[in-house]
Amino acid sequence: MHVDGWKDKEVLVIGGAGMIGSTVASMAVQEGASVTVLDAMLPLYGGNMFNLEEIRDAITFVREDIRNEAALREIVKGKDVVFNLAAQVSYVRSNKDPLLDLDINCRGIINVLEACKESAPAAKILFSSSRFVYGAIEHNPVDEKHPFNCLSVYGIHKLTGEKYHKFYHDAYGLDTVSLRIANPYGPRQQMKHSEWGIVNWFIRLAMDSKPLTVYGTGSQKRDYVFVEDIARAFLAAASSPKTKGEVYNVGAGVGTAFMEMAHAIASMIPGTVVQQIEWPADRYFVETGDYISDIRKVQKDVAGWSPEVPFLEGVRRTVEYYNRHRKHYWIPQ
Amino acid sequence: MHVDGWKDKEVLVIGGAGMIGSTVASMAVQEGASVTVLDAMLPLYGGNMFNLEEIRDAITFVREDIRNEAALREIVKGKDVVFNLAAQVSYVRSNKDPLLDLDINCRGIINVLEACKESAPAAKILFSSSRFVYGAIEHNPVDEKHPFNCLSVYGIHKLTGEKYHKFYHDAYGLDTVSLRIANPYGPRQQMKHSEWGIVNWFIRLAMDSKPLTVYGTGSQKRDYVFVEDIARAFLAAASSPKTKGEVYNVGAGVGTAFMEMAHAIASMIPGTVVQQIEWPADRYFVETGDYISDIRKVQKDVAGWSPEVPFLEGVRRTVEYYNRHRKHYWIPQ
Repeated sequence: MHVDGWKDKEVLVIGGAGMIGSTVASMAVQEGASVTVLDAMLPLYGGNMFNLEEIRDAITFVREDIRNEAALREIVKGKDVVFNLAAQVSYVRSNKDPLLDLDINCRGIINVLEACKESAPAAKILFSSSRFVYGAIEHNPVDEKHPFNCLSVYGIHKLTGEKYHKFYHDAYGLDTVSLRIANPYGPRQQMKHSEWGIVNWFIRLAMDSKPLTVYGTGSQKRDYVFVEDIARAFLAAASSPKTKGEVYNVGAGVGTAFMEMAHAIASMIPGTVVQQIEWPADRYFVETGDYISDIRKVQKDVAGWSPEVPFLEGVRRTVEYYNRHRKHYWIPQ
Repeated sequence: MHVDGWKDKEVLVIGGAGMIGSTVASMAVQEGASVTVLDAMLPLYGGNMFNLEEIRDAITFVREDIRNEAALREIVKGKDVVFNLAAQVSYVRSNKDPLLDLDINCRGIINVLEACKESAPAAKILFSSSRFVYGAIEHNPVDEKHPFNCLSVYGIHKLTGEKYHKFYHDAYGLDTVSLRIANPYGPRQQMKHSEWGIVNWFIRLAMDSKPLTVYGTGSQKRDYVFVEDIARAFLAAASSPKTKGEVYNVGAGVGTAFMEMAHAIASMIPGTVVQQIEWPADRYFVETGDYISDIRKVQKDVAGWSPEVPFLEGVRRTVEYYNRHRKHYWIPQ
């Protein structure tokens, strides 16, 4: 079912201590929903209890792993909306350890869907997919029918996850939708390492007075999308009856050159140096060509949603957030 | 590397005691290759030692499961060609037990590719994919760019398996190719149950003097492809340098109505009754619409390959095979 108003709705945010999950959870709380956050708090990933600081008293928090199928069946009972956001999120690691990625991003996702099928068959289920399903880009902007030229195990398994959601919709009538997220950034992302989320990582480097390194000319374009715009898309998609069984790109819908991104950050953190070096050979799998989301489908089906936070404003808010809360994310070296 | 001549080539057929695998193994032996057959001999599936009867003294047989990664690393060492054919092959079961399908058809496939990457990086690797990746058919004949409207977990995971093969090609230079097989039939298929392979199952029913039941008018078309044509396609694809990193449909390239298939079998087994009944509601996932392979791509890239055995001739040879060897496949009730 789609959601007509969030007041007293039972909402489960799986992976809810991460950047996107905690932002979704905060918005759902603000809308008056009854929110449960589930997170495995795995050390490598983005789960951080500080992300939930402001809503800690308003939510139920459950530390659990989506690889535990029995626990999921209990937790999803009675839920009206399930945000299915937990994941192994490092494409670098997915290639080094494909079986780990399989275990979380395929087996875990099947577990969530099986649990919903058994214990919450009427719930709206929203899956966080990724632009990585497209891999090597053939044309821009990229619409949802673009070929799947996956360049990472992570991208392959996100595509597999989408297909699971579509299958459980087709076969069992679950009300699923997948959102293919472009390049997310914003407050509450982990800042421990650089395996994903280059915008946030550059913000950390600049705040630590380290140079920002750009490969080549830095002309490759990315679609950087602010976390609050993503979270609003998830909530709005839950409220739209048209999204049942569908898949949508979610991005800013505009391309920003990598170099421009670096200079935007540098402009807000005085003293930041941007330096250029040659492309290292082993960076091949990061470079997919320009990527710009075609977001017309989500704008058509999901009433009222459009990206609202321009890149400079998003960077400003992100820098401000970490200036205030840095100690909860990293210890400057 | 592709294969220039099979003489003394080290060939590994994974899933080699099944219908397609044993036919591939027999052809490779005939071509002078040194053949190792690996099969887990799982009770539900098609592994049958009698399938290897004629080549038993010419091959090395290893009973092993692709879920055992450590064993695979030893076995692939020194191999020139790896036929990666082991699978959970029941789409019915894949939907009932998606985690089993995941374990064999995703984890097992990753294990094979990881083993090749470590221990046989120059081997040609050929993967058996399926028309099930296409699911609901939008137009006929179906070319390789048709959308992936998977209607089963089996179909989803075959697509995932193809993407793994492409990824290990792109990322690590493995010489992989995937063949999307239409509706296979022929000698050496398991005859224990009807979870897949309707042509063979109908042959068993007719040989047991039971009626052949056709749902509705039986006008839906399928692309029935004879196992020897499939096996020749695997060997020919191994010998073609153009197949590296590619995916191909393999089928007869012609559609045969379901009713016509039933009558073809009945015409060869005197006394067989063909009866029509209404479509049962739960058969939804079997019905994908007509399916006919567009085989122009494989005919273009794989020199000398075309389907050679017309449907009636294939049925004739299959009936003849089971007339001779029935006791090794089922006990008439």
